[in-house]
Amino acid sequence: MHGYAPGEQVVDCTKLNTNESCQPPSPAVMAELARVEAEALRLYPQPRAIDLRRAAAARYGLEPEWILAGNGSDDCLTVLYRAFLAPGDRVTCPWPSYGLYDDLATLQGAEIVHVDYRREADDWHLPRHLAKQAAKLVIVANPNNPSATLTPVDELRQLAHELDGVLVVDEAYVDFTEAELGQGSILPFLDRHPNVVVLRSFSKSYAMAGARLGLLFAHPDLVAQLMKVKDSYNVNAVTQRLGIAALADRDYHQQLCRRTVAERLRLEGLLSARCGWTWPQSRANFTLCQVGPQAGELYLALKARGLLVRWWDRPALRDFLRITVGTPEQTDRLMAALTELT
Amino acid sequence: MHGYAPGEQVVDCTKLNTNESCQPPSPAVMAELARVEAEALRLYPQPRAIDLRRAAAARYGLEPEWILAGNGSDDCLTVLYRAFLAPGDRVTCPWPSYGLYDDLATLQGAEIVHVDYRREADDWHLPRHLAKQAAKLVIVANPNNPSATLTPVDELRQLAHELDGVLVVDEAYVDFTEAELGQGSILPFLDRHPNVVVLRSFSKSYAMAGARLGLLFAHPDLVAQLMKVKDSYNVNAVTQRLGIAALADRDYHQQLCRRTVAERLRLEGLLSARCGWTWPQSRANFTLCQVGPQAGELYLALKARGLLVRWWDRPALRDFLRITVGTPEQTDRLMAALTELT
Repeated sequence: MHGYAPGEQVVDCTKLNTNESCQPPSPAVMAELARVEAEALRLYPQPRAIDLRRAAAARYGLEPEWILAGNGSDDCLTVLYRAFLAPGDRVTCPWPSYGLYDDLATLQGAEIVHVDYRREADDWHLPRHLAKQAAKLVIVANPNNPSATLTPVDELRQLAHELDGVLVVDEAYVDFTEAELGQGSILPFLDRHPNVVVLRSFSKSYAMAGARLGLLFAHPDLVAQLMKVKDSYNVNAVTQRLGIAALADRDYHQQLCRRTVAERLRLEGLLSARCGWTWPQSRANFTLCQVGPQAGELYLALKARGLLVRWWDRPALRDFLRITVGTPEQTDRLMAALTELT
Repeated sequence: MHGYAPGEQVVDCTKLNTNESCQPPSPAVMAELARVEAEALRLYPQPRAIDLRRAAAARYGLEPEWILAGNGSDDCLTVLYRAFLAPGDRVTCPWPSYGLYDDLATLQGAEIVHVDYRREADDWHLPRHLAKQAAKLVIVANPNNPSATLTPVDELRQLAHELDGVLVVDEAYVDFTEAELGQGSILPFLDRHPNVVVLRSFSKSYAMAGARLGLLFAHPDLVAQLMKVKDSYNVNAVTQRLGIAALADRDYHQQLCRRTVAERLRLEGLLSARCGWTWPQSRANFTLCQVGPQAGELYLALKARGLLVRWWDRPALRDFLRITVGTPEQTDRLMAALTELT
């Protein structure tokens, strides 16, 4: 088997390839980091991250028993796979989506079933038949990665009703959607769906990919079971404290998301005018550009100029480049290179 | 199933129950923490922790390919269980030992086989027949937890020769042994044993339990396989940097270990004189005191006075208290309480 291959991490490049935030974390997070004392390192962290879960519960208007904290939302996914999937069990997701859903299935000896987003039309609508795969887990990234497209909450709620298994809605990018539309998340409806699990990440809209923090939201009975599966001390003490600080600074978070969306719109305007590319409508901090057969070559040419974007050598995605929204300076650098190259 | 129950984490207590270091982490670690900049949080960490593994390789005289970094050595154990044990496969360890070995087996659907340390004599020698259990994994904590006893390296090397499976030597506490005896670890012999895996923890002798960091050492072919099983970004960026700083301050580390051993000897002297207790010879930062049938009551009475030690309500350990070495002040506080109570 092959392990999951994360996007390249290269020094001294303009990194527009792994969807990190283009802006730094909140100053409140950095201030909290400066306050971390030796005792916080010396002692074991809270095993169930109760202070962090209380902060998240207050932020999202539910109780801490509805929340599990993970060492990144990747850790939450691992916990879900281990809890729900015995060898041979089935997990399904619309495709293309986040590659880790596949790799975790291989690791767990489970069968992954892809249901193509574009079998019926090239519009990235949630595919029909997703509910009919006899899967223990159905995973939908919303907004989806790599398409950046948003499935309306009503469709996901309908899917949850139709399923015998559990629906995992991976909302790693949803904060950008909410900044733009004021809605997008299924979280406010969670108490009406005992078979729905929601994942959130601090790697994107909180600019804390390096700290590793993800949250899982689900019915308390389900969370109690998942607590037994996670590593005892899965989230380190420093990250727990940074997470609390990040959640508290709501103004900064909102501003970061709005600025990112504004810069995405500027980037898309430039790409459209300069390159004539199109893309499915983005609701995230990246855009999946339909470049054509020269996408792979262009990826390499940009890389040679120190500009990293994401390209996959796979039939479904070979004609696309996924570009993370950068700072205005990074956007300008990218556009200068594209002007030379296209 | 029940999840692993970590030792209690209670505020405002004298914590002598979870074997954390009684001394703080190195000032070099705190200085590095103060240097962590916003970019280290914004970007994903090195997925394979190459800088940290290089630092550890230099420290231990081998190549980075022999090392995997984990989110605590508990994470390394999880990776080993997932890599080697299919449902129904067998894992064995001498017993009593670290309870997590059992809980991870339950999680993985594997069968755990205990071989009692004390079937033949009450001396905590490595039991015979450990090699004859047809187990894919054999795990020996050395020094053992909760007995704090040390198995000579030659015996472990002999065991490795006799095994068809993999021998995991969990050396979470070995630095205290080496501070006392100048030896104890199987690590210098690793290149002669392709079926041996060594685990090290930063939670004890590096006083970094809150940061979550463990290292796994094994033959590069084996490490390459395990890399595919671990979460992509399992060790956060801050902890990677703190680990490098901790490894670099060898003087402080040695001093911390020596002081801890000296205080353990003082504690043992006081316990012997005041309480008349005995214990298997400790080579770690804790002592397993044979207290007798009143151990459980004494545990509760100490707890009522704000002094936490470890007691297990299990036949094999019911007469024992495990006491972590504290600061001199904590030792004195414990002795004052014991003088009242015994």
